[in-house]
Amino acid sequence: MTALKIQVNLTDSKKEKPLSDHLEFGRVFTDHMFSADYIEGQGWTNHRIEPYAPLQLDPASIIFHYGQTVFEGLKAYSSKDGTIKLFRPEQNMKRLNQSSERLCMPLVNEELALEGLKRLLEIDQEWIPTAEGTSLYIRPFIIATEAYLGVSPSKKYKFMIILSPVGSYYKEGIHPVKILVENEYVRAVAGGTGMAKTAGNYASGLKAQQVAAEKGYAQVLWLDGIERKYIEEVGAMNIFFKINGEVITPALNGSILEGITRKSVIQLLQHWNIPVTERKISMEEIRTAQKNGLLDESFGTGTAAVISPIGEFNWKDEKLVVNNGEMGGLSERLYNTLTGIQTGKIEDPFGWVIEVEKPINQL
Amino acid sequence: MTALKIQVNLTDSKKEKPLSDHLEFGRVFTDHMFSADYIEGQGWTNHRIEPYAPLQLDPASIIFHYGQTVFEGLKAYSSKDGTIKLFRPEQNMKRLNQSSERLCMPLVNEELALEGLKRLLEIDQEWIPTAEGTSLYIRPFIIATEAYLGVSPSKKYKFMIILSPVGSYYKEGIHPVKILVENEYVRAVAGGTGMAKTAGNYASGLKAQQVAAEKGYAQVLWLDGIERKYIEEVGAMNIFFKINGEVITPALNGSILEGITRKSVIQLLQHWNIPVTERKISMEEIRTAQKNGLLDESFGTGTAAVISPIGEFNWKDEKLVVNNGEMGGLSERLYNTLTGIQTGKIEDPFGWVIEVEKPINQL
Repeated sequence: MTALKIQVNLTDSKKEKPLSDHLEFGRVFTDHMFSADYIEGQGWTNHRIEPYAPLQLDPASIIFHYGQTVFEGLKAYSSKDGTIKLFRPEQNMKRLNQSSERLCMPLVNEELALEGLKRLLEIDQEWIPTAEGTSLYIRPFIIATEAYLGVSPSKKYKFMIILSPVGSYYKEGIHPVKILVENEYVRAVAGGTGMAKTAGNYASGLKAQQVAAEKGYAQVLWLDGIERKYIEEVGAMNIFFKINGEVITPALNGSILEGITRKSVIQLLQHWNIPVTERKISMEEIRTAQKNGLLDESFGTGTAAVISPIGEFNWKDEKLVVNNGEMGGLSERLYNTLTGIQTGKIEDPFGWVIEVEKPINQL
Repeated sequence: MTALKIQVNLTDSKKEKPLSDHLEFGRVFTDHMFSADYIEGQGWTNHRIEPYAPLQLDPASIIFHYGQTVFEGLKAYSSKDGTIKLFRPEQNMKRLNQSSERLCMPLVNEELALEGLKRLLEIDQEWIPTAEGTSLYIRPFIIATEAYLGVSPSKKYKFMIILSPVGSYYKEGIHPVKILVENEYVRAVAGGTGMAKTAGNYASGLKAQQVAAEKGYAQVLWLDGIERKYIEEVGAMNIFFKINGEVITPALNGSILEGITRKSVIQLLQHWNIPVTERKISMEEIRTAQKNGLLDESFGTGTAAVISPIGEFNWKDEKLVVNNGEMGGLSERLYNTLTGIQTGKIEDPFGWVIEVEKPINQL
């Protein structure tokens, strides 16, 4: 029923698609995009799929000045059986609305947003790469478009979904990364916007990331902004530790983003009867575990990398090597299982994967 | 010399100007805007003044996703002597670059930016309203324009200055405002971006502002994000207290924006030999002073209102009335002096005011 509400205007000049082995992350976009407009008093209108094109926005649009915006990130996979697969997309639409709530933005109809995404994927299905490890990255986002310099919630918004074919995160195989524990900069604090997927969190993280990169570290580990003791996230990922056989991840505390990969890892571990705990965990506890030879593994979780094993932490110039700098068995099992389920190679016992119908002659 | 670098393309369809008594804040913009483009490796190029028009930006532009942006706010006044006056504009350009530093953005040539602003003001001088209390609000801002979904500093930026004629902040006379002391939400914390004028700080403040408005309060008072005890800012302004004859404002601590009105108020007070101190000050201290009858006055400082007297604080449902809810003598003296200097009615002993040449027949 909802499908009827989406107007479709196809491009008459399709772009050239990049080769599967030349794919980077987030630089190339498909032929079409999904859009809808919000006007206070009218709600969301004009749901449409149209050719990918620049946006025209007044220079006074609130997005440019006060950053009222939320976004999501997920992936579509081209399965060997010819279907397009999505991994828990309803979770992304739900979190999009949770983020909007924090940012005083209007909620979207999650079902209609998902329907819009599916139709967009059908139309741009030729853009989904098929090589091992590749996928189509999906970026839903909402921006405040009212032309007004007063600091107050916008009365106009634009909801969009754009698509980008992306290469394998691990082109050269999976190599654990080195992480710098951040002591100067803070990502978020309770009462702020850390639990929302919103632009400001990422803008504020750039500086620490730049400093870490200059020192030869792939990412920063964010500590809490209050005591600078407790672990929050790693780069733009959630983080897990395996200590003496138990898996631990920081409990959601109002400043940590509730990752969908994080949630899926916890469910998988429970399914496997591996003990997993969400609790406050300090960097001192990690250091002690490592010194006592009990820090078995550590890894980040997120949509881009899925599982990103960590080989070393640098905390106040002390290097804490994890599992001899090698990928651990649990990290590998999680990576293989999650990517297997996502791409349809492994049976999905959780009902996580949604298939998009792929009508052959639609175009 | 720098003027030669700015290309000028004038509009051939001037817009109708709003009446002086119908002016709101930040809704109407002048005929022209200043722009420059930054490309990594080339620096800032293409400095120009052109007709005010929508921006065309790729939907994947970093500004829409990761909020890499900084801005400034200042005002131009039309003086009775026929000149255009700017209040400490070099301070805004300096702070713009300080904000950019924190956000990993390229610095602008402050002199050239000021030159661009002056030329823009000359061209759109007819838009500067002349009625009492009105002014031309100036919004310089820089946005990240590279079309890339990776979380890293943009390689392309756009620097713009737009102008908006604004009405008197105190159309109905100055009435002290009621302030809700915020206990749930946090504006910023040391290590974050609170000291930078960047979009994310304002996005994160919307929710608290909304809750306060629903309860009948004009603004929120932000407490520190760590102990939730110490006073930081009020709404988007700095805050001052006069306690037992001494003026106190929270010391800059990494999460407070260094306001130019704040700095000017401190200098004025010193000039008047009124004791003024920058230090940590808790809400408990304010409560005690009020209970003991020693809280003489309190006021916010910022570009929009200049001085905004505070008549009441609500802290955990306890109402702390200031100066019987009336404007205090010091607030009034500061307001009259600052606006007098800004508009040229009062002599400027500090060299704060810069005059823009106003060639009569330029257009």
